[in-house]
Amino acid sequence: MKQVFNIGLLGLGTVGSGVYKILTTNAEDLAQRAGAALRVAAVAVRDKEKKRLVDVPEELLTTDAFKVATDPGIDILVEVMGGIEGTKDLLLTALKSGKSVVTANKDLIAEHGEELFAVAKENGCDLLFEASVGGGIPIIRPLKQCLAGNRITQVMGIINGTTNFMLTRMTQTGATFEEALKEAQELGYAEADPTSDVKGYDAARKMAILASLAFNSRVTFSDVDVEGIDHISDRDIAYARDLGYTIKLLGVAEEETDGEIGVCVYPALVPNEHPLASVNGAYNAIFVRGDAIGEAMFLGLGAGQMPTASAVTGDIVEAVRNLLSGANGSLISTCYHNKKIKDTLEAKRQFYLRLEVSDLPGVLSVITGILGRHGVSIQSLLQKRADSSEAEIVIITHEGREHSVYDSLAELRELKEVKAVQQVLRVIE
Amino acid sequence: MKQVFNIGLLGLGTVGSGVYKILTTNAEDLAQRAGAALRVAAVAVRDKEKKRLVDVPEELLTTDAFKVATDPGIDILVEVMGGIEGTKDLLLTALKSGKSVVTANKDLIAEHGEELFAVAKENGCDLLFEASVGGGIPIIRPLKQCLAGNRITQVMGIINGTTNFMLTRMTQTGATFEEALKEAQELGYAEADPTSDVKGYDAARKMAILASLAFNSRVTFSDVDVEGIDHISDRDIAYARDLGYTIKLLGVAEEETDGEIGVCVYPALVPNEHPLASVNGAYNAIFVRGDAIGEAMFLGLGAGQMPTASAVTGDIVEAVRNLLSGANGSLISTCYHNKKIKDTLEAKRQFYLRLEVSDLPGVLSVITGILGRHGVSIQSLLQKRADSSEAEIVIITHEGREHSVYDSLAELRELKEVKAVQQVLRVIE
Repeated sequence: MKQVFNIGLLGLGTVGSGVYKILTTNAEDLAQRAGAALRVAAVAVRDKEKKRLVDVPEELLTTDAFKVATDPGIDILVEVMGGIEGTKDLLLTALKSGKSVVTANKDLIAEHGEELFAVAKENGCDLLFEASVGGGIPIIRPLKQCLAGNRITQVMGIINGTTNFMLTRMTQTGATFEEALKEAQELGYAEADPTSDVKGYDAARKMAILASLAFNSRVTFSDVDVEGIDHISDRDIAYARDLGYTIKLLGVAEEETDGEIGVCVYPALVPNEHPLASVNGAYNAIFVRGDAIGEAMFLGLGAGQMPTASAVTGDIVEAVRNLLSGANGSLISTCYHNKKIKDTLEAKRQFYLRLEVSDLPGVLSVITGILGRHGVSIQSLLQKRADSSEAEIVIITHEGREHSVYDSLAELRELKEVKAVQQVLRVIE
Repeated sequence: MKQVFNIGLLGLGTVGSGVYKILTTNAEDLAQRAGAALRVAAVAVRDKEKKRLVDVPEELLTTDAFKVATDPGIDILVEVMGGIEGTKDLLLTALKSGKSVVTANKDLIAEHGEELFAVAKENGCDLLFEASVGGGIPIIRPLKQCLAGNRITQVMGIINGTTNFMLTRMTQTGATFEEALKEAQELGYAEADPTSDVKGYDAARKMAILASLAFNSRVTFSDVDVEGIDHISDRDIAYARDLGYTIKLLGVAEEETDGEIGVCVYPALVPNEHPLASVNGAYNAIFVRGDAIGEAMFLGLGAGQMPTASAVTGDIVEAVRNLLSGANGSLISTCYHNKKIKDTLEAKRQFYLRLEVSDLPGVLSVITGILGRHGVSIQSLLQKRADSSEAEIVIITHEGREHSVYDSLAELRELKEVKAVQQVLRVIE
């Protein structure tokens, strides 16, 4: 039986350095757990001269990622360099040359999962991606294996650490969106270009992966109804608090009883007593509901060097075990259904509305009248005076169909008493 | 490739019925996920005439468990009948005849795991036990696989649903221990003989299993320092609440930096803002701390028919996948270390003390003087008047060594002013 397995690492940035660190410092335990020793045989980097977070012997470094992906001496290719098109080609090459592949790349899996898994299957190779969602939190394997007895009906949670850090700061310190973003960038939680996080795209890719696994039907990024947090103001945070809620960016994937799937990412008002309301900072938390298990929650650090490296290393150990037992490539296609994506406007939800109105006697009755005619009833209402001639009205509705709320908002926008519809957010129970 | 795998079920009680229900109602999805159809081929019961929770065709039932365990037509034996010695023999027989075995039996795994795993390995068979701890919560597989990159330093949580239900009722309704036990028995949460739950033995067996997996060193029931909840009074619950704490039965397994392991089960005062304080009713929650992941938490229903059946079915699906890929029996021994069990009296902890004292002037200064001489300092103190001549004193200490607290209590018991040391409980931060 093979005694040593060679690992090729693509990328030696934050996560790559973490993986290298675990593989070298926990080497003895890893060898026992995997059943054979793990040896980093090559590391592809962009610039060999760059200063690193870990000491890697000079002779392991190469700038030729393609050479690592095709090197017949490499058993397992670990991709932690990011990127989509070029990276996809590297992984396809590695799979075609019979290597097991471990990746932390959610963008790649969300976008090209179907092709990659097909090639992995053809070539009898493992393609493992636990680190792509929820950082260190075990969620992919529990969904695929431990919960395999269930018909999963919902996966819901906080799956982007950057925006959760920002919303937590806005809630705890009263910071504006811009201040919270700046702080997140300074601490390394947000990138220089924060678009993917604050627009919800990162969360949407992760939800596409989770929904595909949970419902056994391919869900891609374009199937996800996405709303980011870049329009959330400190005022919304404060009003939500006054009403007993905390604003969180949620991913929600549901299968209706008719077999249709809805997958959304949106900022929502979460009641303070809900477990998600107290998931703060860089923590992620994912709820899974199934017909047998009822409800289970997984919580932990959703990003960061060592948590993500923990997930990658768990996959490496599994890849070695599979190579030893000959179970590599015994991938079972998890997307054997082809379920319809649901029109989310048909969903019934509660809403938070913030309107800027002229402070005229009777304005409230006009607004509530219009909402009422569309079947939107009001659970609570705050009137906040802004200055002498204008006021702000904050409304939490009872549960109603999304399109009724949007229809009534269209009508409200026509009123001379309504200066602006400043905010429309969903509310969860 | 084999198209249908035959399952032999030992036991058709609560969990067995749940497994049968999932295998029949989710059959199509299970076949897709496993890669082959699953067929219940035989069910061993004690009494064929007994009324069942599910309809099972008469011809599948047998009272001969041994026949099922040795039947060459059975691929996977699922043990959900409970029991130790006789059950062990059945599972050993099944493993020796080459069957994969799935069990929910924590008593058996905690007591005879070593022998069973050795025989499974010898015979190239799977022996899976996800349902033995935490009901439906995925915890065994995450510890063995997803977190394999970590040096785990602590596993801690609420792992007995019966006692958590009872303590929750005592906290929420002011019920006495006896009232809460009666209610738990009426609702089917507690057995007629509740010893194993209320004395902490059930939790201790689960902690032995978790600690063995987390620290890769065999921990058995007798290694666990166990304290139950049968001495917790409604008065302790109320005083704890006055001080901002909730009493929970915790399992705590730790590896010290010197490589020694401590595993305990005890009721403790948990600060109300701690996530475990709000894990109520039949819910379980398990925290895992590791050098890479930091901290992760797993939460869900820790017992009950369908959650436990969910875990059993997940194992059955994995057993089939392994049989299909030939990876069955590729068990890696997880107990490759032989770590020393730590003397828990050396641990540093906070304590809750409840003393019955004569209400004499100066009694407080005598008590605090003795504590002080043993290096036990006081964080908070409540004096509760019981009647004219006697009083109750409740003390929360700062962190100190257990033996210092026990030494000072021995001295306090000698004082004429101290009528009784009514309660000594640990406090966690």
